[in-house]
Amino acid sequence: MSLECIDQHRSFGGEQRKYSHYSDVLHCDMKFSLYLPSNKEGKKIPLIWWLSGLTCTDDNFSQKSGFQALADKYQAAVIIPDTSPRGEDVADDEGWDLGQGAGFYLDATQEPWAKHYKMYTYITEELTSIATELVPNFSGEESIMGHSMGGHGALVIGMRNPSRFKAISAFAPISSPSQVPWGIKAFSTYLGDDKTSWKEWDASELVKKSGMPPIFVTQGDKDQFYPGQLDETNFLNNAKEANTEVSFNKVEGYDHSYFFVSTFLDDHFAFHIKHLR
Amino acid sequence: MSLECIDQHRSFGGEQRKYSHYSDVLHCDMKFSLYLPSNKEGKKIPLIWWLSGLTCTDDNFSQKSGFQALADKYQAAVIIPDTSPRGEDVADDEGWDLGQGAGFYLDATQEPWAKHYKMYTYITEELTSIATELVPNFSGEESIMGHSMGGHGALVIGMRNPSRFKAISAFAPISSPSQVPWGIKAFSTYLGDDKTSWKEWDASELVKKSGMPPIFVTQGDKDQFYPGQLDETNFLNNAKEANTEVSFNKVEGYDHSYFFVSTFLDDHFAFHIKHLR
Repeated sequence: MSLECIDQHRSFGGEQRKYSHYSDVLHCDMKFSLYLPSNKEGKKIPLIWWLSGLTCTDDNFSQKSGFQALADKYQAAVIIPDTSPRGEDVADDEGWDLGQGAGFYLDATQEPWAKHYKMYTYITEELTSIATELVPNFSGEESIMGHSMGGHGALVIGMRNPSRFKAISAFAPISSPSQVPWGIKAFSTYLGDDKTSWKEWDASELVKKSGMPPIFVTQGDKDQFYPGQLDETNFLNNAKEANTEVSFNKVEGYDHSYFFVSTFLDDHFAFHIKHLR
Repeated sequence: MSLECIDQHRSFGGEQRKYSHYSDVLHCDMKFSLYLPSNKEGKKIPLIWWLSGLTCTDDNFSQKSGFQALADKYQAAVIIPDTSPRGEDVADDEGWDLGQGAGFYLDATQEPWAKHYKMYTYITEELTSIATELVPNFSGEESIMGHSMGGHGALVIGMRNPSRFKAISAFAPISSPSQVPWGIKAFSTYLGDDKTSWKEWDASELVKKSGMPPIFVTQGDKDQFYPGQLDETNFLNNAKEANTEVSFNKVEGYDHSYFFVSTFLDDHFAFHIKHLR
């Protein structure tokens, strides 16, 4: 594994870093970002995962959310993966909602996607090994959050690993991907037409199981993709039936942008920290 | 005047807006951004000007600094002009440090620049008229801050109008433009080779006069352009001789990026608010 730190900035008390490495799982070169808080007191610190939305790389959240102020305030490390495999020999699509920049945090089974599109395994295994080595004084505690497609990713990865992630949160997540255009397009392409295989990647199905971590969702009512791609009804109904703790916060006047994410990011960090410590 | 609001996002308690208009001073279409805080109590609010650096538009600060959290916390409106005139019929240069994106906040006298490159008059007159109309409950109080070339702009515009701006601050400013490569290139191009005309656009000259507003500067010691383009020695020496109050804060480990700006932005807002109220 050829891990290289390719960018580094002091940011608030800590450091914003960007790394490049070859991924054995994705069979391509990948980049990710990592924030390390100051940790002046040398305490054990938790790791929060951030998953970004369609068309994003690890740069969007790093540059547009202002999260570093919060990660340093709460003394948490934050890792931000890319949203798909990348490169000229990686399958792609002309649409911005499929292929590179739109990996949907699953493991594809269909050709020509199956070779590279294994974002779930990449994040939960390969990148996990790398990240936990890079965080000094790592407490072993993890949680996960994300936005839009990354909200879907956070819900799915968090609920598939309920004993590992202490908290899950999402901004405007695709919480019923099997039932909305973005999800149907991605799942039929990456997973094929047999919809039984879709269930293990659909938050509204996963939430039916008991024993899930606490979940917090924020949704703007002026979001241009709401309710269309982002309708929460199904997810909340299924959570309620399973007695899963979901706090759903609909906020008036906010849209789908990072202006929305930034505004409510402190609430999400506070929620995670409460459950991480 | 054809003022149009072309983008609008709820952000923290207030609103992040983007406007387009035809500038009679610059003879071209211009864009600028404006943040209006929530102002739930209906108080009189001040206006802070932000001037950006080389290659920037009004978007960089709007999207990368996280300033909205602070503008809403301190209940100040913030206006962010573009950094130069724009358009196909506006003179330009192949270099990123001259022409479009590099207006240097002055009024050019040389051809082919003189027709469009009047950023000083645009900001202090035309855009001022527009901005003060757009801020509800405007208190009439203004201050100015900026980064790099925009730090130069904030120092120059603030010190040329000392009774108008209650505070001036700058991140890594070009404080002696007549003596460093960026400034010499821009001044000789826009103002010509007669260096006497440069003095009225050089912060280190302007600071020799008495009666200046309080000035606050933050400079990272790992800035890739420091001290080269950004050496403060001359500026601080001249300020001291004139008994002008300059607080210069050199910060360890920080570079020239928005990661640096974000980190110290709260200090700058607090400084401005103290002098605005």
